Amino acid sequence: MNSKERFLNACRGLPVDRPPVWIMRQAGRTLPEYQELRSRYSFWQLCRTPDLAAEATLQPVRRFGMDVAVIFSDILVVPAAMGLEVRFTPRLSITPPVREARDIERLLPIRPDSNLDFVAEAIRLVDEQSTAGPAVLGFSGAPFTLACYMVEGGPSKHFHQIKGMMYGAPGVFADLMERISAAVTSHLRHQIEAGASAVQLFDTWAGELGPADFRRCALPYLRRVIEELRPTGVPVIYYVNGIGNLLEAAAQTGADVLGIDWRLDLVEVRRRLGKGQALQGNLDPAILFAEEPVIRKKIFEMLDQTGGRGHVVNLGHGVIPDTPLAGIRAFVNAVHQWGNDRNG
Amino acid sequence: MNSKERFLNACRGLPVDRPPVWIMRQAGRTLPEYQELRSRYSFWQLCRTPDLAAEATLQPVRRFGMDVAVIFSDILVVPAAMGLEVRFTPRLSITPPVREARDIERLLPIRPDSNLDFVAEAIRLVDEQSTAGPAVLGFSGAPFTLACYMVEGGPSKHFHQIKGMMYGAPGVFADLMERISAAVTSHLRHQIEAGASAVQLFDTWAGELGPADFRRCALPYLRRVIEELRPTGVPVIYYVNGIGNLLEAAAQTGADVLGIDWRLDLVEVRRRLGKGQALQGNLDPAILFAEEPVIRKKIFEMLDQTGGRGHVVNLGHGVIPDTPLAGIRAFVNAVHQWGNDRNG
Repeated sequence: MNSKERFLNACRGLPVDRPPVWIMRQAGRTLPEYQELRSRYSFWQLCRTPDLAAEATLQPVRRFGMDVAVIFSDILVVPAAMGLEVRFTPRLSITPPVREARDIERLLPIRPDSNLDFVAEAIRLVDEQSTAGPAVLGFSGAPFTLACYMVEGGPSKHFHQIKGMMYGAPGVFADLMERISAAVTSHLRHQIEAGASAVQLFDTWAGELGPADFRRCALPYLRRVIEELRPTGVPVIYYVNGIGNLLEAAAQTGADVLGIDWRLDLVEVRRRLGKGQALQGNLDPAILFAEEPVIRKKIFEMLDQTGGRGHVVNLGHGVIPDTPLAGIRAFVNAVHQWGNDRNG
Repeated sequence: MNSKERFLNACRGLPVDRPPVWIMRQAGRTLPEYQELRSRYSFWQLCRTPDLAAEATLQPVRRFGMDVAVIFSDILVVPAAMGLEVRFTPRLSITPPVREARDIERLLPIRPDSNLDFVAEAIRLVDEQSTAGPAVLGFSGAPFTLACYMVEGGPSKHFHQIKGMMYGAPGVFADLMERISAAVTSHLRHQIEAGASAVQLFDTWAGELGPADFRRCALPYLRRVIEELRPTGVPVIYYVNGIGNLLEAAAQTGADVLGIDWRLDLVEVRRRLGKGQALQGNLDPAILFAEEPVIRKKIFEMLDQTGGRGHVVNLGHGVIPDTPLAGIRAFVNAVHQWGNDRNG
């Protein structure tokens, strides 16, 4: 069973020889070979130059042997393609912020075959360079999270601009969310056409919503995006940090796989959800700073909870900057070892 | 029924004429009269000078008529009293960070009647200046949260230092938690002796733990602190941001009241907990940026969920800086109005 079959089977809850493993944010900041690349190119240059993005995508897979190569990109490529200026230095800013109906009018419809084709092209290159290799995972920010960035104009602690729009101008909010959802769908479909084996929706900020607001302001748009991707036949993974309060609602998105953050016990998740979806996650990323025996013990405990079925092994959040390479290696190796112990 | 009776009855699940109301972080940054005070004194000067702290405590109560005067102080007074240097500018730092057994040896035992008496003295002054007035609420950081600050040495995004200690040096972690717990107990007992009607434990960072780690690394210390305060007879409120994943475990702390953040629906909380504890919360602080009718509608919906019984009305998190004063007023007034509508 190769990595792609293993990953796709796990996403669909089908039998696997061992659970597939990858790490959110595996491509990038933790790797010396990435730092070397980064010393020569800006982050945006790496994202927008397909052969460089493909190289960054494959670096962790070559070093550690993950089953999945998540494409090196950023969730903010979508707001950028909609005409906003996205800067990462000195701090993240997305300008001009979208606050009123007329700001929405000025947004561009995205044309993934032109202004986002660099992502698809990177996927094609990764796929070419690794025929017997990893599954290629495309991704996009989820609509609510992209709306947060676009309305707040950058990172936010309290999200009162977007919530002000939700509560005070629901028509404007709905219009914005519809446009973003169309852009997300189009971006993901284009990645799938380029060869992505699966796609992930990252909903970084939806955990800031209570369940009622999530059902009203995020869920309908997620359902629409996922429904429109259904004919492609590829699995969709939905990740929201802080899924604990939203688990039952998140299950209604129609996603094939739910990403679970580290604050939940997977046995409890299975009890609440039944067997409808595969799960992805969910080790505390801080554990990778521990010694190898601690990491192995934690992974074995987690895998014993799920039995390794319908389970894409991952951290419960993106890898922490400065995580020791030995911790990442121990993580991947422990999954392999659990599989070997079990099969042998 | 005066404010103090109303608040204490609500904490104990007893009948009230209307639910009591206050706002986490009501004293301080949002008020112009506080800004005026702050233009003359540093934050630490305000905390450590009892008549100034008493003044800052009473400012919001005078302006808005909350039922509770939460003492103007900071959770970091405890690490400071244990001998660490706490600076707020240019960014928060707690030095030297506590990383090893010998760092713990150097911590001072706190003597609340000397190096923390300014808090108790402020409580005595507030109590004197408001005989027919609000309940006075003392507070402390909870042990795990204080340990996070002391080990990380400041705010943290990923908490890998403290988690490294939890996983890698459990004996050192336990020793630190025991010392902090003793300090917290002593600090809270001293506030109660000075006249606090109730005390709140703020566990700002415990929501970063999964349920298993919470039960192992935070819960036993919380139980001990609360158990040791039991003979005083005053209610204890336990607040953890992100309580959704920890609700059942948090109920085992022995706290009389659980603070609920805005990401949970109170009907769901009651269903999960039964009627064991009173609840405090839980409006989304961002709602105070909305217009008055939206705020009133949200509060009425929330109070209709609990029926106003065993419910201390509050936000689900501290008030956001720059919240409009009109929003705070609308919040407090709506609770009064709900009570009036209901009674008559």
